[in-house]
Amino acid sequence: MIPTQDDFNQALERTKPFVHNTPILSSRLMNTMFGHQLFFKCENFQKMGAFKMRGAINAILQIPKDKRVMGVVTHSSGNFGQALALAAQQLNIPAYIVMPENAPKVKQEAVAFYGGQIISCASNTQARQATAEKIQEVHGAHFLHPSDDIDVILGNSTCAAELLDVHPDLDALFVPVGGGGIIAGTAIAGLYHSSPVKIFGGEPEQADDAIRSLAVGRIIKPKHTNTIADGLRTHLGDANFPIIQQCVDQIYPINESDILKHMKLVWQYLKIIIEPSCAVALAAVKQWPVSDKKIGVIITGGNVDLDNLPF
Amino acid sequence: MIPTQDDFNQALERTKPFVHNTPILSSRLMNTMFGHQLFFKCENFQKMGAFKMRGAINAILQIPKDKRVMGVVTHSSGNFGQALALAAQQLNIPAYIVMPENAPKVKQEAVAFYGGQIISCASNTQARQATAEKIQEVHGAHFLHPSDDIDVILGNSTCAAELLDVHPDLDALFVPVGGGGIIAGTAIAGLYHSSPVKIFGGEPEQADDAIRSLAVGRIIKPKHTNTIADGLRTHLGDANFPIIQQCVDQIYPINESDILKHMKLVWQYLKIIIEPSCAVALAAVKQWPVSDKKIGVIITGGNVDLDNLPF
Repeated sequence: MIPTQDDFNQALERTKPFVHNTPILSSRLMNTMFGHQLFFKCENFQKMGAFKMRGAINAILQIPKDKRVMGVVTHSSGNFGQALALAAQQLNIPAYIVMPENAPKVKQEAVAFYGGQIISCASNTQARQATAEKIQEVHGAHFLHPSDDIDVILGNSTCAAELLDVHPDLDALFVPVGGGGIIAGTAIAGLYHSSPVKIFGGEPEQADDAIRSLAVGRIIKPKHTNTIADGLRTHLGDANFPIIQQCVDQIYPINESDILKHMKLVWQYLKIIIEPSCAVALAAVKQWPVSDKKIGVIITGGNVDLDNLPF
Repeated sequence: MIPTQDDFNQALERTKPFVHNTPILSSRLMNTMFGHQLFFKCENFQKMGAFKMRGAINAILQIPKDKRVMGVVTHSSGNFGQALALAAQQLNIPAYIVMPENAPKVKQEAVAFYGGQIISCASNTQARQATAEKIQEVHGAHFLHPSDDIDVILGNSTCAAELLDVHPDLDALFVPVGGGGIIAGTAIAGLYHSSPVKIFGGEPEQADDAIRSLAVGRIIKPKHTNTIADGLRTHLGDANFPIIQQCVDQIYPINESDILKHMKLVWQYLKIIIEPSCAVALAAVKQWPVSDKKIGVIITGGNVDLDNLPF
């Protein structure tokens, strides 16, 4: 169930030529504010603006070459669609991105910009799945899930690995929880790190399926997902749930006003553009009842529609 | 009139312990868009969020110690007030910041946060000068001008010096023009660089006093300063004008819609928060009628009121 250290090391080597080793920022002012030493791993500076590039490229590279040339397909209205498009473009293979017909124009344009072929469908799960299946049949394209795929998770693990390489003495890593792909990847990096590092998540109260799933020991789908953290409106999957169960210390619920507050804090004091989804990780730091720790915070992405800001 | 290479080298050494050597960002997407290789020197990541820290600390350190303990005073409703407050705090001396009574609350709070003593006055030039003079008399504080001071200019020169140290083969540097302090400093760094580097400015059309001053050969005060680039609503001074006359290749006028457009471009594609003032430098790149050059762009600051964005 849990990938081996070898799997982890190989993903690191495999993806290195295709991704940025993103900058790590810190701010004395933020340290004072939080009572910790904070190190922000800035995946908003990653190619296409989010960590999703890591999982996408690793997963594509794991498809056998003769199959890979037929292309890849996913359904995503968010960053994974863009990531898969760009990763496929780098490898010169087609990418078919199934998007709901009401997906924001800015997201459709981004997928198209990276060379992805957009296939519109009705805005419901059945239509998305049916459309993706049809593309697999017609084009022979390989389906990749945005977060519930062990190669995507291993690709994601390289982000925390880079951070721990620069700061090996971190006490804890804080990560947003949506589909579970980045926290599972981060947990794997922590597992194979040379010294113990705690793994914490932040999850919107308004989409708290992971917290509830961990409580009952099986995947629960969200009842409501009415959160401004639009990247976190999904639920855990079979590939990442056991990793999260075994390797994550705790996931903290974050209310909407704290998401907004911590998003603005980062914009104001770190001077970087982050998505609302990132803010749950920083907000979760406040709920860990300790102080004076060295903490890594994964800034997962910076793709915000500047004409529709939540404040 | 023009500082010597020795002055320049000494400013570099003097300020080094007190400022961040800020990151340099680039983006393949932006390079494609502009047809150049662009290197963004990110002073929005500088202490207090702007390059002004460099000039402030250099100028304070040049005041003899016995005089320095009496403190420093300036009139500024913008970044220099914050910079002087923080620089003075680092050296444990008082800073008196004269601010118009209608200065935005967010700017007053920032000055206070850095330990500056705010003295309110009426919102006109006479009141600002009279208030600053009174503080010199009462406290024996040393007056520092935000841009028209050779030690402030020399402090500012360290920004381009750091950029040229990493990228010695730049063809040109692009800088915003407001009071003239950062372009004069950049010109000095270019002058003493090992290979020739052109120096260009961008100035809002709505505050084009520098372009008009260069045309007639004497400092002209702006007729109107109705630009969203609030940091550039000032005019050149006796200390920087001769440097700009002798060492700057050209200053391009930038209209308001181009300022807004280039500000948003940077937010969207570089994922960093920049002030509208920075955008004139990037917009000016478009007006240089060449292509395929290596260009440094000085991102002067990132102190934006997020609750009053210009878009």
